Amino acid sequence: MPDRLESSVSDRKPAIDLHGLVTELFPINRSLTGAGVRETLGVVARHIDLKINEVATGTAVLDWTVPMEWNIRSGSISTVSGRRLVDFADNNLHVLGYSKPVQGVISRAELAQHVHTLPDQPDLIPYRTGYFADDWGFCLSHKLWQSMTDEHYRVEIDSELSSGSLTYGELFLPGQSTQEVLITCHICHPSLANDNLSGIAVMTALAMRQARRTHRLGYRFLFLPATIGAIIWLDRNQSKLDRIRHGLVLTCLGDSSGFHYKQSRSGAIIDRAVAHVLRHSGHQYEVMPFNPYGYDERQFCSPGFDLPVGCLMRGVHGTFPEYHTSADNLDFVRPEALDQSYALIESILDLLDQNRTFERVDGRGEPQLGRRGLYRAVAGQREAGGATQMDLLWFLNLADGKHSLLDMAIRADVPFARLETAARLALEASLVRETI
Amino acid sequence: MPDRLESSVSDRKPAIDLHGLVTELFPINRSLTGAGVRETLGVVARHIDLKINEVATGTAVLDWTVPMEWNIRSGSISTVSGRRLVDFADNNLHVLGYSKPVQGVISRAELAQHVHTLPDQPDLIPYRTGYFADDWGFCLSHKLWQSMTDEHYRVEIDSELSSGSLTYGELFLPGQSTQEVLITCHICHPSLANDNLSGIAVMTALAMRQARRTHRLGYRFLFLPATIGAIIWLDRNQSKLDRIRHGLVLTCLGDSSGFHYKQSRSGAIIDRAVAHVLRHSGHQYEVMPFNPYGYDERQFCSPGFDLPVGCLMRGVHGTFPEYHTSADNLDFVRPEALDQSYALIESILDLLDQNRTFERVDGRGEPQLGRRGLYRAVAGQREAGGATQMDLLWFLNLADGKHSLLDMAIRADVPFARLETAARLALEASLVRETI
Amino acid sequence: MPDRLESSVSDRKPAIDLHGLVTELFPINRSLTGAGVRETLGVVARHIDLKINEVATGTAVLDWTVPMEWNIRSGSISTVSGRRLVDFADNNLHVLGYSKPVQGVISRAELAQHVHTLPDQPDLIPYRTGYFADDWGFCLSHKLWQSMTDEHYRVEIDSELSSGSLTYGELFLPGQSTQEVLITCHICHPSLANDNLSGIAVMTALAMRQARRTHRLGYRFLFLPATIGAIIWLDRNQSKLDRIRHGLVLTCLGDSSGFHYKQSRSGAIIDRAVAHVLRHSGHQYEVMPFNPYGYDERQFCSPGFDLPVGCLMRGVHGTFPEYHTSADNLDFVRPEALDQSYALIESILDLLDQNRTFERVDGRGEPQLGRRGLYRAVAGQREAGGATQMDLLWFLNLADGKHSLLDMAIRADVPFARLETAARLALEASLVRETI
Repeated sequence: MPDRLESSVSDRKPAIDLHGLVTELFPINRSLTGAGVRETLGVVARHIDLKINEVATGTAVLDWTVPMEWNIRSGSISTVSGRRLVDFADNNLHVLGYSKPVQGVISRAELAQHVHTLPDQPDLIPYRTGYFADDWGFCLSHKLWQSMTDEHYRVEIDSELSSGSLTYGELFLPGQSTQEVLITCHICHPSLANDNLSGIAVMTALAMRQARRTHRLGYRFLFLPATIGAIIWLDRNQSKLDRIRHGLVLTCLGDSSGFHYKQSRSGAIIDRAVAHVLRHSGHQYEVMPFNPYGYDERQFCSPGFDLPVGCLMRGVHGTFPEYHTSADNLDFVRPEALDQSYALIESILDLLDQNRTFERVDGRGEPQLGRRGLYRAVAGQREAGGATQMDLLWFLNLADGKHSLLDMAIRADVPFARLETAARLALEASLVRETI
Repeated sequence: MPDRLESSVSDRKPAIDLHGLVTELFPINRSLTGAGVRETLGVVARHIDLKINEVATGTAVLDWTVPMEWNIRSGSISTVSGRRLVDFADNNLHVLGYSKPVQGVISRAELAQHVHTLPDQPDLIPYRTGYFADDWGFCLSHKLWQSMTDEHYRVEIDSELSSGSLTYGELFLPGQSTQEVLITCHICHPSLANDNLSGIAVMTALAMRQARRTHRLGYRFLFLPATIGAIIWLDRNQSKLDRIRHGLVLTCLGDSSGFHYKQSRSGAIIDRAVAHVLRHSGHQYEVMPFNPYGYDERQFCSPGFDLPVGCLMRGVHGTFPEYHTSADNLDFVRPEALDQSYALIESILDLLDQNRTFERVDGRGEPQLGRRGLYRAVAGQREAGGATQMDLLWFLNLADGKHSLLDMAIRADVPFARLETAARLALEASLVRETI
Repeated sequence: MPDRLESSVSDRKPAIDLHGLVTELFPINRSLTGAGVRETLGVVARHIDLKINEVATGTAVLDWTVPMEWNIRSGSISTVSGRRLVDFADNNLHVLGYSKPVQGVISRAELAQHVHTLPDQPDLIPYRTGYFADDWGFCLSHKLWQSMTDEHYRVEIDSELSSGSLTYGELFLPGQSTQEVLITCHICHPSLANDNLSGIAVMTALAMRQARRTHRLGYRFLFLPATIGAIIWLDRNQSKLDRIRHGLVLTCLGDSSGFHYKQSRSGAIIDRAVAHVLRHSGHQYEVMPFNPYGYDERQFCSPGFDLPVGCLMRGVHGTFPEYHTSADNLDFVRPEALDQSYALIESILDLLDQNRTFERVDGRGEPQLGRRGLYRAVAGQREAGGATQMDLLWFLNLADGKHSLLDMAIRADVPFARLETAARLALEASLVRETI
């Protein structure tokens, strides 16, 4: 155990440039399926030993079916005379996700049925998809659309919806125990930096870090197309779900707002762990009760699974103006915010890994700390009972085989690492033993 | 089930003129026993199929004995020369309830021993009874009493306390299940409109309404002389009390104050149901903890029974100045307040009746709503997850056989009817089944 | 029971002059062991039938060993020319507790290694001990120390650290049941009035009072050198600890601040009892959660024992400026504060003793109080349900064999004594029986 305890004093820096990774991944056009997802996972796999899984179109998974694979080469709106006004090559948000191919000259009125804008944010391009709709469409700034007053326009989308496969990535790092921590992010959004790439980047760095270490728990990192990806993984791993003792969905970790943690459906250690780390982090934060909308915690927390999975965010989906628009870009995501998020989650993972339970070898009365060198020789000083002394007293009082270190830290209201230090001192003095 | 679910969108109007019924009942002189109670129940029985029960004087019931029957023909105080100053014919509050007969000329000093007034409300006649006291008395305004300065007065009460019976009314409307909802009011107060007649009128209308419908639960309506009536009913129905799953005592439902709900003794679904309906009602309200004073919930919540019975009021007994005075009259009770009370309780009864528990046919992950027509085709819109969509997600997430619809509505913090709608949609799509 | 119930209306005055006892004990030099402790217990034993226990140096007790006995005859710092500057005879705080003997002329620089002062409170002498350190030292005012500018001083401590014994006092007053209340204070501080003597004095008076009475519970009063005294007693009485149902550590009961109650480790009746008495006491108070620092509750609440023991204080150790200084003297401790503390704890002990559980002989409905003379004959009065009537209704409603009188008093939010009165009335009327 001693080597593990020191982890809490690491400086918690990611091994890679998180904003750089976001920047590298930004231009790629991702969707539920297709070449962009594979390219993204390929970049991640340069850093970690990622297992890439392909699941064939039409495969039945729980209540769902793996969709057709969608790929797109180009898409544009031009004047009849050929001047390009909207071009997928400029911004991959311009084409509605899963648009079927289209080509021809159509009236503005007909085009209007296929155009998505944001009248309240006239300079921004919205992000829209039509996954299971037999449709096509363009997303553009309201300002541009209002300036388009021709009677006809030429539209062109060169896309393909065909039998293929859905791709997701998985990395499992076994621990000393069979218990696992599940960490997931979604990988199905195109050029959106916060609501997609921040999670991918932070999770990649976390996986790199855990891969370099030994740990008590196993860590399972999933890079999933949202919803259907989680459904597929759950379908394929039903027999192993009872190993998951803690889980976190990661998203929107690069913006500048405070942290938001959404609790698991039924209450779990992860909820207390994240709240504890946030409380002592110095960051602004809010803990929110579970609700059935959001990210893949929806699937993990569905009633048939009810896994102990929460969701950690900075800005909350749908509440910041950049959400699902072209403003969720490389400027919106800040290097220092990404690094903070990484450090916070690293602390959470370390806490989970170190959250052991101890009991006193002999719990009758306080042990005599003095003869073990654990007590200041001169008692009765007003400043006695300082931090470290008090931490040790808390630990020795609560080491009853029922309180985990996290329970103790919460009751003492001190950072987990201080109880961890107390546990090490007490272990070294043979005052406690770990309970299984 | 579908036909039941629509009930939540009824406009909830009573089938009779509630204030009209109060007005009709107002002049009748009621007491624990006697002709006035029978006359009152006779009026109610014109609207519902009420079973009238007579219980003989002297019958032993739990710790009590059914009292003598009291009837009164007249009562007055006159000057010695024969001028009537106080007359029972003007207001039946003038004679102390259960007064024994008296006749003769007595000194003002002796009369003062038998006169009840309200010095702080000098214009009002108080309501007083002397149920188990061998006494007689008059209630009059303090102003009048102060103006009575003669040395002697002629008093006359033509009443009779004799072996007879106590009368109460009961209507039981069987449901599909053996579980019952108990709804009671008291019927033993004379011309007091709020603290008596409002409950009788609202309960009559509720019984009319439930009689016209099929329902899952049985509904038992009791019109009882307070305390002794509840004691009698409990004594006679001990073997059936375990059928009572929810209960409400109704009183003071016609005044203009906000609603007050007094919780059951040990906590029950009825407490959560009433609080939930009140929360979403738009009315001012307060939920009060149980206490052992008040109405017949005292008997239902006695330790040997401990039934799940609460008490719903607008103004709380003893806290509004009109309470137990001649000011609790037909002006004090407002038609719109009675109608509001009716509508609120109807909502509560419907909630109890519809408060079923469901479980997902397959709870693993979210079902694919799109192919069932339950999801907007274009996802990713900022306004997605609107009310109805969110209700359905809550329902599908909590349909685990453990959460009732009420549990879901409270957790989602939305009106019960919205979860009910979600349940109907999910049932129609065969996504859930009801659990027993 | 009737004779016991009246206790709640006693005027609760201590049988002795508490401040007088504090004054008598003040000059004695106490430490963990030695003559001063014996002399102190001898004074107490003039009031109660105290059993004095001696435990030999070197005895193994739990994780500890009984220390050497320390005695001191004199101690001083003088100028080289013989003028006494610091003298143990003036104030026994001047010598570090457990100082070993020393004699000779030493440089100021060397003396400085053995001098303890309070720079922030330059007029006060600090209280310091060096129990298990092979050390000697002096405590003096910072002002005096700063005025001492000679190059050398003559120091002299005539003390003895030798094999002997540790002394503690115990009084057990058996009750009708085998259940016990444990009440303890510490007796190891020298001339400190609040943090030592206030507890001794109040506990002595409580023991005197309980000795004169019969009681349901047994009362065990322990006068203990802190920490090691509790360890010894626990070691010797392990087989009887399950008899302890409630416990209180008493300390700092003579200052003028509000009361502070520190809860037991795992939650217990004592916590609710003390909070209830404080709530209705009219005094300022604060209830604090358990923490593992403080007085002997640390030992009683260690995980291997986890006894239901809290700690009652006025000022909290370490938070008032007089703490562990020469300002914790006879002026700091106020007669009226001591008497208030006594009265409060007497109330707590009486509550614990009277905290019985009752059940209705027949709990079905309310009993008819009228025919038992327990109800006002004229019902319907606005002022009905006054205090006594309401207390009786609460009692009769909650007398279900599950609610103790304390549970009832807390739920009704009225002083315990009022439920006690109601219980007496109901017992006399044969409406309830006590449950075992």
